[in-house]
Amino acid sequence: MSHQEALTKYLAAFITGLVQAGIKDVVISPGSRSTPLALMFSEHRDVKVYMNVDERSAAFFALGLAKASGNPVGLLCTSGTAAANYYPAVIEASLSGVPLIVMTADRPHELRDVGAPQAIDQLHLYGRHVKWFAEMALPESGATQLRYAKTTAIRAVKEAIGHDKGPVHLNFPLREPLLPLLDPYPFNDEETTIIIEESILFLPYEKLKNLAEQFQGVERGLIICGKIEEDGFTEAVTTLAIKLGFPILADPLSQLRSSSMSSTTVIDSYDAILRVNKVVDELKPEVIIRFGGAPVSKSLSIFMKSLYDSEHIVVDSGSQWKDPNYVGTTMIHCNETAFCTELAILIQEKKSSNWLSTWLAMDEIAKKTISDHMQLTEELEEGKAVYELVNLLPVDSTVFVGNSMPIRDIDSFFHKNSKNIMVMANRGANGIDGVVSTALGASVYKRPLFLVIGDLSFFHDLNGLLMAKLHKLNITVILLNNDGGGIFSYLPQYGEPKHFEVLFGTPTGLNYEHAVQMYHGQYTKILDWEGLKMAILDSVSYEGLNVIEIPTDRERNLTSHREMWQKVSQEINLFLQDAEK
Amino acid sequence: MSHQEALTKYLAAFITGLVQAGIKDVVISPGSRSTPLALMFSEHRDVKVYMNVDERSAAFFALGLAKASGNPVGLLCTSGTAAANYYPAVIEASLSGVPLIVMTADRPHELRDVGAPQAIDQLHLYGRHVKWFAEMALPESGATQLRYAKTTAIRAVKEAIGHDKGPVHLNFPLREPLLPLLDPYPFNDEETTIIIEESILFLPYEKLKNLAEQFQGVERGLIICGKIEEDGFTEAVTTLAIKLGFPILADPLSQLRSSSMSSTTVIDSYDAILRVNKVVDELKPEVIIRFGGAPVSKSLSIFMKSLYDSEHIVVDSGSQWKDPNYVGTTMIHCNETAFCTELAILIQEKKSSNWLSTWLAMDEIAKKTISDHMQLTEELEEGKAVYELVNLLPVDSTVFVGNSMPIRDIDSFFHKNSKNIMVMANRGANGIDGVVSTALGASVYKRPLFLVIGDLSFFHDLNGLLMAKLHKLNITVILLNNDGGGIFSYLPQYGEPKHFEVLFGTPTGLNYEHAVQMYHGQYTKILDWEGLKMAILDSVSYEGLNVIEIPTDRERNLTSHREMWQKVSQEINLFLQDAEK
Repeated sequence: MSHQEALTKYLAAFITGLVQAGIKDVVISPGSRSTPLALMFSEHRDVKVYMNVDERSAAFFALGLAKASGNPVGLLCTSGTAAANYYPAVIEASLSGVPLIVMTADRPHELRDVGAPQAIDQLHLYGRHVKWFAEMALPESGATQLRYAKTTAIRAVKEAIGHDKGPVHLNFPLREPLLPLLDPYPFNDEETTIIIEESILFLPYEKLKNLAEQFQGVERGLIICGKIEEDGFTEAVTTLAIKLGFPILADPLSQLRSSSMSSTTVIDSYDAILRVNKVVDELKPEVIIRFGGAPVSKSLSIFMKSLYDSEHIVVDSGSQWKDPNYVGTTMIHCNETAFCTELAILIQEKKSSNWLSTWLAMDEIAKKTISDHMQLTEELEEGKAVYELVNLLPVDSTVFVGNSMPIRDIDSFFHKNSKNIMVMANRGANGIDGVVSTALGASVYKRPLFLVIGDLSFFHDLNGLLMAKLHKLNITVILLNNDGGGIFSYLPQYGEPKHFEVLFGTPTGLNYEHAVQMYHGQYTKILDWEGLKMAILDSVSYEGLNVIEIPTDRERNLTSHREMWQKVSQEINLFLQDAEK
Repeated sequence: MSHQEALTKYLAAFITGLVQAGIKDVVISPGSRSTPLALMFSEHRDVKVYMNVDERSAAFFALGLAKASGNPVGLLCTSGTAAANYYPAVIEASLSGVPLIVMTADRPHELRDVGAPQAIDQLHLYGRHVKWFAEMALPESGATQLRYAKTTAIRAVKEAIGHDKGPVHLNFPLREPLLPLLDPYPFNDEETTIIIEESILFLPYEKLKNLAEQFQGVERGLIICGKIEEDGFTEAVTTLAIKLGFPILADPLSQLRSSSMSSTTVIDSYDAILRVNKVVDELKPEVIIRFGGAPVSKSLSIFMKSLYDSEHIVVDSGSQWKDPNYVGTTMIHCNETAFCTELAILIQEKKSSNWLSTWLAMDEIAKKTISDHMQLTEELEEGKAVYELVNLLPVDSTVFVGNSMPIRDIDSFFHKNSKNIMVMANRGANGIDGVVSTALGASVYKRPLFLVIGDLSFFHDLNGLLMAKLHKLNITVILLNNDGGGIFSYLPQYGEPKHFEVLFGTPTGLNYEHAVQMYHGQYTKILDWEGLKMAILDSVSYEGLNVIEIPTDRERNLTSHREMWQKVSQEINLFLQDAEK
């Protein structure tokens, strides 16, 4: 059998395994060494290939595809630093549990570490940041080798989508000639596969019963939900909360704020409420049940740290230790949906609770105050921009949120609704990198999609916009342009005027209209609030890349936020004083 | 002592060590966790800080600074994926031996692996791609700790600039509050330092004498020089070659083509010459002495592989095994300049050699043919663009060359001259990534600087252009725009029409004038050869970012190259036939 025949059969077996295990999308960057894999993925009828020249952007695009589709996604690049450009997205995928199958083409063994061009040490290139690494064997076409190639593909997907989802890395040494044989069609769709059955983690009934008995007698309980993506979790946790009479402090990435069941127990303005000393001092819970990642809110984090005497239960189905504040008193390693569902069955629904109604009342007051504050805000600033956006978003839309300030503003201003809006963000490592590409990847599966992003983060991944042009993707970018790093004005270094603007303000002075033109997008610069409304309403009917820039002032953003928190604080204090009377 | 005082003293000791060991430039990306280091670098009177928002670009910019200045350069970023963006440049620095001191701020131990925001596992983040990694202690101000901090800084520089130069990585856990005390001035310039004396590798005299005796009797010898940067090497190797009567096949990155001594022994058109079967068959050397990295030329590489009976000596001062073709018969681990200088002393200068004059004659014929071919080339194409550029470059200028096709065209068309032109490129891993940023970093020390780059590589690092705007750097970019990946037309996959254009051609259809406008640069699109001349002559007087686009056609580039090789082959064959008569 010729080299080309063996190459073709081996890679066909591998790709068949990937497809059988659920791979539908593969993001490929151009290169020579990866030629046989690139050609064969393109040839496969059930694989959709996305080309992306910039590997950093390619990996984040794949991340977005996987986040939005719920399926594992393949990534392929050539040898050398190309593969190193995947690193930021691989780390984000690892920390946020997104399944990626990273495939890097490599020089064969005899061309490694001898000064050959484009040859770097690719073994364990991503260190401990992948769930699994395998150096593939050189292509051979014996029956065992074909079975090995296919099984390894299926196993790679299994590793990526099992408990603790995440990226895996397969390195392929490939020898020249690099051309496979595409005629006849090299894949056999009829081939048998390997079925993988996964179980879920389930807490023993006795333990659940003990917890139910304990919770039944507690009035002052809180449920806290950070970012979580578990089938059926929204309904299960809401049911449990209603039965227990516990408010749910719901991070925007918990997806609880935009469900039809959210109105009765979900609290969404806790970031403002928990800045009030009186609340922190007087509304201490006896029990906290926490699910998901660390919430965005810093005031919530400080509140949790202050609760030394509370029982604090962390429920998590992964193997991470999700407790950055060291407040956990019980760590429960269990599927979250199953935990809520089974526990709720054991709980007798409580009668109306003063504790819950106090939280709900404070939440209403905070939101009314915020709303009044926004009414009075005439000049453009970021808090109101996000507030307005959320109100204008169409039903069933998705909002992808940049890190640093936008996610904090979404936390503050994305309030309970029944519009079924999904909120997405890269909250594994919270980087400002790769956000444009991730959002564009997500836009393939989530429409309409709005990306809310600051100018530095937009700049960081400007290259990502090429995917909108090449693949005709639809996205509306809400660009909050304060010409620099807005978040630093909220931090102590703001008091260091000598170096502040150079090191932290970092104004770039760029007019992004040029970039958007280059990518054939539509660009609108907002001049007033009416203009923002019009632009967002118009965006629904626009196809392609649509960038709406909201020019803001870092100083004014800071002042407006502080005024808003001040007003909420006043109103909450008044309410609590009245309640005491 | 307060936390802030300890933080300040500890970091002052560290930074003092770095500066004493030779760090002058530090490239910083904005972030919160890195605040104390960023502020203190900015405060130091002898440190020049370059801010760069995109860490991938920042690291390549630092690489360029270090390559052009010959000094180690510092890099600083915050925690999280920011640090992962350095990876491509770190790998390039590692493979091309460029000293970088990579400093990553990190969360302290109690905030690691517990779901805290922006916390990734940064220990050994760059794996085996750095020469040295150290996890720094938390800031403390005891005498031993201050001495430790300073010594570690000096040692880090020593590791980066010693034998086998390269990047080192220091990870800094830092606790809040992150503000150091800048008043009074925290550094003491008078402090004592640690002196480091380095030796060079020197081959024992007996071995040298044996080699000299052996070479003295050889007529058919070749010296091959790839990329090499050793003080005094150009003069030493030329002297040796003249005495031995051996031609030097000199890669453009050997810097031998543009020295005043280059005319007598340097051969620069071997890429074209060695495509002639008759040359490969008949002009076999008995001895090859090779220095530096793998040459760019593929025909030279194939020629070397064909020489089974030649003695092939590889001289290298590093610890790498620079022999991708497995042709070496003797590996000499020795300082290259010392080797040439000492050996030349032991050699008696040979009389005129027929072997040398044949090579020089072929070289002249090849260049005359290339020149004639260029005269006849009317339409814009890349080979002639590079050929014209090289002729027009001012004395003492630097040309930074992109990978893929530009470096191959420079190899073919950058001929011997006495203009003292430096040729630079990223030839560690040969990536198309980070080239714009590396060139801009180099432009700080090398003026005037011309970057010759293809459109995909330009696109990949478009963000790098921000540094030209922010730091008022002068650079002329010669953008060879064939709208896609030109090199693939020269490879076998060109014969795979079904997927070729999507997977390898990868046209982006971008008009880069928009991007250049965004960065406040000047943009000129060339329409004919006269226009190119004018634009390059004008560029000398232009300050700032200047982009000259040469639109070309991939098909035409390929045809013109093939015609040129064909003509050279005819002329060389004629010459060899004449010589036989």
